[in-house]
Amino acid sequence: MKPRIETDQLGEKALPADCPWGIHTARALDNFPIPGKTVSPRLITAYFAVKKACALANKELGYLAPEKADSIITAVDEFQVSSFKLPLSALQGGAGTSTNMMVNELIGLTAGAHPIEEVNLHQSTNDTYPTALKVAAIRGVRDLSEDLAKLQGVFQTLEKTWATLPVLGKTELVDAVPLPLGAQFASFAEAFAHDRWRTFKCEERLRTVNLGGTAIGTGLTAPRSYIFLVIEKLREETGLGLSRAENMIEATANADCFVEVSGILNAAAVNFIKVGDDLRRLAMLGEIRLPAVQAGSSIMPGKVNPVILESIIQIGIKVKANNTIISDCVARGSLQICEFMPLLADALLESIDLLVTASRMLAKHAEEIDADQGKCLERLYASPEIITAFVPMLGYDRCAELFKQFEQLSNGTIREFLEKELGKQTVEKVLSPQNLMSLGHK
Amino acid sequence: MKPRIETDQLGEKALPADCPWGIHTARALDNFPIPGKTVSPRLITAYFAVKKACALANKELGYLAPEKADSIITAVDEFQVSSFKLPLSALQGGAGTSTNMMVNELIGLTAGAHPIEEVNLHQSTNDTYPTALKVAAIRGVRDLSEDLAKLQGVFQTLEKTWATLPVLGKTELVDAVPLPLGAQFASFAEAFAHDRWRTFKCEERLRTVNLGGTAIGTGLTAPRSYIFLVIEKLREETGLGLSRAENMIEATANADCFVEVSGILNAAAVNFIKVGDDLRRLAMLGEIRLPAVQAGSSIMPGKVNPVILESIIQIGIKVKANNTIISDCVARGSLQICEFMPLLADALLESIDLLVTASRMLAKHAEEIDADQGKCLERLYASPEIITAFVPMLGYDRCAELFKQFEQLSNGTIREFLEKELGKQTVEKVLSPQNLMSLGHK
Amino acid sequence: MKPRIETDQLGEKALPADCPWGIHTARALDNFPIPGKTVSPRLITAYFAVKKACALANKELGYLAPEKADSIITAVDEFQVSSFKLPLSALQGGAGTSTNMMVNELIGLTAGAHPIEEVNLHQSTNDTYPTALKVAAIRGVRDLSEDLAKLQGVFQTLEKTWATLPVLGKTELVDAVPLPLGAQFASFAEAFAHDRWRTFKCEERLRTVNLGGTAIGTGLTAPRSYIFLVIEKLREETGLGLSRAENMIEATANADCFVEVSGILNAAAVNFIKVGDDLRRLAMLGEIRLPAVQAGSSIMPGKVNPVILESIIQIGIKVKANNTIISDCVARGSLQICEFMPLLADALLESIDLLVTASRMLAKHAEEIDADQGKCLERLYASPEIITAFVPMLGYDRCAELFKQFEQLSNGTIREFLEKELGKQTVEKVLSPQNLMSLGHK
Amino acid sequence: MKPRIETDQLGEKALPADCPWGIHTARALDNFPIPGKTVSPRLITAYFAVKKACALANKELGYLAPEKADSIITAVDEFQVSSFKLPLSALQGGAGTSTNMMVNELIGLTAGAHPIEEVNLHQSTNDTYPTALKVAAIRGVRDLSEDLAKLQGVFQTLEKTWATLPVLGKTELVDAVPLPLGAQFASFAEAFAHDRWRTFKCEERLRTVNLGGTAIGTGLTAPRSYIFLVIEKLREETGLGLSRAENMIEATANADCFVEVSGILNAAAVNFIKVGDDLRRLAMLGEIRLPAVQAGSSIMPGKVNPVILESIIQIGIKVKANNTIISDCVARGSLQICEFMPLLADALLESIDLLVTASRMLAKHAEEIDADQGKCLERLYASPEIITAFVPMLGYDRCAELFKQFEQLSNGTIREFLEKELGKQTVEKVLSPQNLMSLGHK
Repeated sequence: MKPRIETDQLGEKALPADCPWGIHTARALDNFPIPGKTVSPRLITAYFAVKKACALANKELGYLAPEKADSIITAVDEFQVSSFKLPLSALQGGAGTSTNMMVNELIGLTAGAHPIEEVNLHQSTNDTYPTALKVAAIRGVRDLSEDLAKLQGVFQTLEKTWATLPVLGKTELVDAVPLPLGAQFASFAEAFAHDRWRTFKCEERLRTVNLGGTAIGTGLTAPRSYIFLVIEKLREETGLGLSRAENMIEATANADCFVEVSGILNAAAVNFIKVGDDLRRLAMLGEIRLPAVQAGSSIMPGKVNPVILESIIQIGIKVKANNTIISDCVARGSLQICEFMPLLADALLESIDLLVTASRMLAKHAEEIDADQGKCLERLYASPEIITAFVPMLGYDRCAELFKQFEQLSNGTIREFLEKELGKQTVEKVLSPQNLMSLGHK
Repeated sequence: MKPRIETDQLGEKALPADCPWGIHTARALDNFPIPGKTVSPRLITAYFAVKKACALANKELGYLAPEKADSIITAVDEFQVSSFKLPLSALQGGAGTSTNMMVNELIGLTAGAHPIEEVNLHQSTNDTYPTALKVAAIRGVRDLSEDLAKLQGVFQTLEKTWATLPVLGKTELVDAVPLPLGAQFASFAEAFAHDRWRTFKCEERLRTVNLGGTAIGTGLTAPRSYIFLVIEKLREETGLGLSRAENMIEATANADCFVEVSGILNAAAVNFIKVGDDLRRLAMLGEIRLPAVQAGSSIMPGKVNPVILESIIQIGIKVKANNTIISDCVARGSLQICEFMPLLADALLESIDLLVTASRMLAKHAEEIDADQGKCLERLYASPEIITAFVPMLGYDRCAELFKQFEQLSNGTIREFLEKELGKQTVEKVLSPQNLMSLGHK
Repeated sequence: MKPRIETDQLGEKALPADCPWGIHTARALDNFPIPGKTVSPRLITAYFAVKKACALANKELGYLAPEKADSIITAVDEFQVSSFKLPLSALQGGAGTSTNMMVNELIGLTAGAHPIEEVNLHQSTNDTYPTALKVAAIRGVRDLSEDLAKLQGVFQTLEKTWATLPVLGKTELVDAVPLPLGAQFASFAEAFAHDRWRTFKCEERLRTVNLGGTAIGTGLTAPRSYIFLVIEKLREETGLGLSRAENMIEATANADCFVEVSGILNAAAVNFIKVGDDLRRLAMLGEIRLPAVQAGSSIMPGKVNPVILESIIQIGIKVKANNTIISDCVARGSLQICEFMPLLADALLESIDLLVTASRMLAKHAEEIDADQGKCLERLYASPEIITAFVPMLGYDRCAELFKQFEQLSNGTIREFLEKELGKQTVEKVLSPQNLMSLGHK
Repeated sequence: MKPRIETDQLGEKALPADCPWGIHTARALDNFPIPGKTVSPRLITAYFAVKKACALANKELGYLAPEKADSIITAVDEFQVSSFKLPLSALQGGAGTSTNMMVNELIGLTAGAHPIEEVNLHQSTNDTYPTALKVAAIRGVRDLSEDLAKLQGVFQTLEKTWATLPVLGKTELVDAVPLPLGAQFASFAEAFAHDRWRTFKCEERLRTVNLGGTAIGTGLTAPRSYIFLVIEKLREETGLGLSRAENMIEATANADCFVEVSGILNAAAVNFIKVGDDLRRLAMLGEIRLPAVQAGSSIMPGKVNPVILESIIQIGIKVKANNTIISDCVARGSLQICEFMPLLADALLESIDLLVTASRMLAKHAEEIDADQGKCLERLYASPEIITAFVPMLGYDRCAELFKQFEQLSNGTIREFLEKELGKQTVEKVLSPQNLMSLGHK
C-alpha cells in the first residue's frame, strides 16, 4: 500500500497507509521515545468524553454539520468501549498537545473529519486537557472512596470480633498500657475513614473546569454561545456535577487544585504505610497472625513473609513521591498554563490507581487476619508497665518506687509482686479488663 | 548557693539552685545537644493553655486543692505573657515528653507544685502534646488565612488598575494570545484566594482533640468526670471551637490530620513559588517593574535584583520540604502514638510562620508593582501569534498558511501584512482590545 | 489440555498445561494485581546471567549433573536473547522472591530442572537479587556515561561555534555583564562532564556483590568452594570487574550503595532541569533559536513550543522523585535485608533509562540550536549594566553615580552617554569584546 | 548620639550611631524579616577567611595601601575568634549579596575601610559566597568524617564483644537463620564506614573554587595578577588544598557539586535512620538493652523509651528533606549563578551539623548497649526456621515437608522433633554455632 503523505507547519511526512493517526501524533512518537509508561487509559477515556461534548455543542449550534458531528460522536463512542492502547509517552512535553492531537487524529481518521478544524473546533489543548484530567480524576477518586469504604468495613469487623481481648499497647516501640485489640483495629478503620471522607470531598475541588476557555482562558476563537453550552453537554455526557470556572483565565493558569488533591492522596499513602507497618509489628510480636499468601523464601522452608503489607508500603512510598512530582510540576508552571501537565496527570492518575489497588489488596488480606489470644494475654500480664493502672490510687512517685523494687527481684511476675504489696483483691479490681479498657475511671 | 539535688528513676542529679526547671529537663538538655532550632514558641504558648485548662478542671472537681490550682494558674498566666525563651531542642526524641516535662517543671517550680503529681495530674504527654499542637496550629492557620486575604486584596487592586491594558499571554514560555494585564494579576489573586479558603477550612481538621485520653487514649489514671470537663475548660481558655474525639484511642494513634493540613500548606507554598517566578518572568520581559528594595550587587552598579521574590521562592521550597518531613514523621509513627511528634510539630509550625511571613513580604512588595505600558503594547503588536484571532474567520489551516507567508517576508509587522491581505477594517475589528480580551466572540 | 497441578507449602494450584511458569509465579500474579509497571527488563536480563554463573559453578564442582547444568545454561542463553515479556508487578512485596522464583520456574520448565533444588541451588533471593541488580545497574550506568559523553560533545561544538559572540550574562534573571555565548554552552558541557565523570565512577560502588551469601550473608546451605567459585563465573559471564564482599552479612543487610548511586543520578537530573530551563530562557529572550520539532498548538497557528526541553525537565523531576523513593526504601529496610528492593530496583533502573533517553533527546536537539547574533548584540549594547566594566578605572561609587545620571536621561544609549562623559577612545577600549570577556584585566 | 546617615543607590537611611553594620545590611534586615534561622556561623567564619585572603592579595599587589590592608586583616582576625552573632535571615534573597555586604560592612566599620571599594575590592558575591561555602563545607565534612570514624569504632567494639553469641537473623521482620550478634553490630559499623569514606572523599568535590571570577566568572573588574594570587592566599589562610577552577564561568554558574555532596549526606541520613530503627527493633525483641537516659513517660512509671534513637531518626528525616531542598535550589538556579545559594547553604551546613551531632549522640549511646544473652538463645532455639541448616543435607522439599509435620505437632521444640527424626548426633552437628555461623559449609 502506498504511504499516506501528510503535511503540517514543519513540512511533509509519509505515514503507513493504515496508520490510525496522523502527522502530529507521528511527530510526537518520534520526539518522545521515552521508555516506560504511556498516557493513562483513565485520561484517554475522559478525553473522548470531552471531545464528544464539544461535538454535541458544535452540532447543536450549527458550527458542525449534523452528519459530521454524528460521525465524530460515533467514533468517540467506539473508542470509549474499545481497549485501544495508545503508545504515546506519559512524559511528553508540550502541555498535553500531543495527547490532544492524537485523540483528534484518531477520531478524525475514523470519522472522516478534519482533526483540527472539526474535531478540535473551538478547543485548545489548554482547556480540553485540564478538563479531561479533572473528569478522569473525579471518576478515580470516586472509585477510591468506595474501595476505602470497603476497607474501613473490614477493619470494623475485626474491631467487633476482638472487642474484648486485651492487648498491651505500645508507644515508641515500648510496652505501654493495655487496650482492647478491637480498638487497635478500630484505629486502622478510623484512619481509612478519614481518607475516605477526604477523598470523597476531593470531588468538589475538581468540579470547576475551564472548557471553552481555549488557549489561555479568554475563549479566543470560540463563540460565546458554545462556551456556555459545551459545559452542559459535558455534564450530561459524564453525569458529573461539573461547572464552568467563573474566571476562566485563572482556571487555565492555576493548577493548584491538583496539588491539594494530591495532598489528600498523600495522606492516604501515609496511612497505608503506617497501618501496613503496624500490622507487620503486631505479627512480629506474635499478637496477630497474617494469612499466608505465598511461600516466603526460595531457601528457608516454611518461612512466610508479610509480602502483601510490603507491597502496600511500597505503594505508599510511591504515592508519596508522586506528591512531590505533582508539587514540582505545578510550582514550575509558568504564566498562562502549567506546561508540565502530562507528568502531573500521569502521577495523579497513577496514585489513584495504586491507592485503589492497595485498598483492595489490604481489604482482602485483612479479612483473614487472626489474633493469637494466648500470646496477647501472655505479653500483657508479663509487662511491669501495668503498674500505671495504680497511679490514680498511689500516685506516680509511689508507683515508680514499686516498679524499682520489682525490677530488683529475681523472679515472679509484677502481678504477684503487687498482690503481695497491695493485697490480692485490690490488684484484681484495678487490673480487671473493664477497669483497664474503659474510658477513664469513676 | 548550694546546688539543688533532684531524683528521678535514673538516680540523683545536682542542679544550680536557681535553675528554673528540674531534673527531667536537665536530662533532656544533656540528651539532645542538637544545634539549631528550639521548641517553637507557638507550641509552648499553647501548651501553657492546655496546662491551665487541666488545672481548672482538676480544681473544679476537687482533685487539686484550690490554692494549689490557683498558684499553677497564676504561674501559667505569667509564662504566657513573658517572652521566656526555652532552650530545648526541636529535634528531641521521646514524642514530646521532654517538652511536657519542661513545662511541668517550670510551672511546678514557680507555683510550688509537684511537676508530675500536680501540674501533670490526669495527663500524659500523649494527650497534652497533640492537643497543644492543634491549638497552636489553629491559631497559626487563622493568622495565615488573614494574611492571605490581605495578599489577595493587593493583587485585586492591581487587577483593577490594569484591567484594560492588553499584554501578550505566554504559554510554555512562548508568546501566545493577549489578555488584560489585570487578568494576570487576578490569576495571582485567585491562587491566593484558594489558599485562603483552604487554610480557613483547615481549622475543622484540627478541632478534634484527645485531651483526657492520657497515655494511649483509654484515659487510664484519669477520672471520667475530668475527661468530660477538661475539654470545656480548654474551649473557654482558648476561645476555639475544640471538641473531644469520639474515639480517643484512634485520635491518639493517628496523626494523619497533620499530613492533610500540611498538604494544604504545601499547596500554598507551590502557589508562592509559581507567582514569585511569574513576577520574575514578567519583570525580565520588562512588562512590569518591581520596586527596588536594595542594591543588587556588590560589584555591578545600578543592578537591582528581585530579592523579595527569591526569598519567597526559598520559603516555598522549604515549606515543600517540610511537607515531606511531616509525611515521613506520620508514616513512621507506630501503634499507639506518633513518636516523631516533635519534628512534626517543628516542621508544621515553621511552615505556618514562613507562609505568614511570605504573605506579608509579598503583599508589601506587590503594592508597589508598576506596569510598563509601552513595553506591554510593543511586545503585543510585534507578535505574529495574534493571527490566532483570525481563526474563527479563516480557519486554522488558512491562518497557518498566512503565518508562513509572513515569516518569509523580510520586513514589516504582522499587522501590516494582514492589513494588506485582509483589508484594514477587518484587521482593526478583529484586533481590537475588546475582541481580543472578552470571553469568546459573538 | 488438562491443567497442570503444582504444590507448594500452601497447597495445590491448577495451572494451564502450557503455562510457562509454576505455582510460585502464579501465586505472585494473584497476590500483586498492581496496575502499571512490571519488572524491568534490565533486571531480568541480569538475573539470567546470575543464574548461569550459579549453574556453571555448581556444574564444575559436581553439585549439578553436567547434562542438567547444561540444559539450565542453554535455557538461560535462550531467554537472554528472547524478548520475553514478564508480567510480574514491579511493586511486588517479598524482597524480590517472586522475581527470583519466576526466573527459576521459567528456566526450570524449559530445562526440565527443579526450580528450587536445581536452578536455585545454593542460592537465595537475598544474594541473587541484589547481585543481579548491581549487574543491571553497572550496565546501565555505562550506557548513561557514554550518552552523557556524547551530549557533552554536542555542547562543546556549540562552544567552539559561538566562542566570540558576546552575549549579556544574566544573574538572578536580571541583565549582568557579558560573556561569550560559547562560554554559556561550555557551562552546559561542563555540567554534563561532571555527570559523566560521576556516573563513570559509580561503577566502583556497585562492583562488590554478596553472591554466595544466601539468605543473610552467612552462606548457610552453600558449600564454601561454591561461594568462592561462583563470583569468578559471574565475572566471566558478564565481563564486569565484580568482586565478592569481604563482609557478606553486611553486604546483604546494607543497601546504602544504591542511595549513593541514586544521589549521583539525582545530580544529573538537577543538571538536566537547570540546562533545560536555561535553554528555554535564552530562547524566550530571543538569543538562541531552538529547532522546531512539532507544531506547538492545536489552536495557535505557527506557535512552536520547547517541547523537547519540557520533556527533559519532566524526566528530571521524575528522577528527582525516584531518588526520594530509593532513600525511603533503604531507610525502611530492616535488619538482615532491605525488603523494599523491588521498588528500589524499579526506581533505580527507571532513572537510568530516563537519563539515557534524556541525554539522547537533548543531544539530538542541541545539535540544531542556532544563535540570533543580532539579538545578542542588541540586548548587550542596550544594557546599562556594561558600566561595570569601568569599575577598575573609576571605582564602584563613581560608576553608580554615572549610572544614576544616565537613568535620568530620556534618550540615548549608555554607550553614547559614556562616550560623552569619558571620551570615545576610552569607552571603545573598555567595551571591546576582548576586554569584556578575557579572564580579568592586566 | 546622633544617628549615622548612610546612602546607597536607593537613597539615604539613618542608622544608630553605634550600629555595627551599614546601610546595605540595614536594608536587608528590613527586607527579610523571616522568623527562624540566621546565617550559619560556619559560613560566616569561612567568609571572613575569604575576605582576609583577598586583602592579603590586594596588599601584596599594591591595590590596597599596606596600613589599610592590615587594619582589614586585623578586623577579620578579631571577628573570627569572637562569637559575634549575626542576625541576618538564612532565607534572604539575592544570592548571598546581603551576607557578603554584612561581612564587608562589619569589617569596614571596624577597620575604617570602605566596605565596597576596599573590603570587597576585586570581589563579587558571586565568587566569594560559593568559595566561602566550599571552605565551610570542607571543614564540616572533615568534622563529620572524624565523628563517623569514632562511631564506627564503637560498633566495632560491640562486634568483638559479641562475636560468638548467636542470634536469630530477621528478614522482612520474620525470623530467619542465625548470625553472631557481633556480625549484626559489624553491619552497623560497615554502614558508617561507607559513610565515613564517602564523606572523606567529598572534599575533592569541593576544592575547586571560583574566587577571582567576580560577577559571572569572567573576572571583570579584577586584575589578572590578583586572580592568580588570591587563591594562593586562601590556601595559606585556610590550610585547605583549594584550587582555582579551570573554567571560572562554569564554576560560577553550576552548583551541582553541592547536590553531589548532599547526596552523600543523604546516604548517611538513610544509614542513621536504618540503624536507629534496627536498634529499636532489637530492643523491642529483647535481644539488646539500650541504656536508659531519661524517664520515658510523664504518666507510666518505669517506662524508658529509645529517645536517643528517635532523635537520631528525626535528624535523618530532616537531612533527607534538606537533600530535596538543595536539589530544588540548584535545579532552579538560572544562567550565570544559582540565586538560591542562601537556602542551599543553610540546608547543606545544617545537614552537616546535624549529622555530626547524630554521630556523637549515637556513639555515646551505643557504647553502653548490652545484649541479653538468654533472650537471644531462647529466641534462636524456639525458631523452626533453623531447619534451613538441614537443606544441604536433605534438600528444600524434604525440609519443607518436615517443617509441615512439625507445625502439626502440639508440643515440643523443633530441635526435639528433628532429633527424633534425624538422630541426635546429626542435629547437634548441623546446629552447632560453628556450622550455623561460618561462611558456607565444607
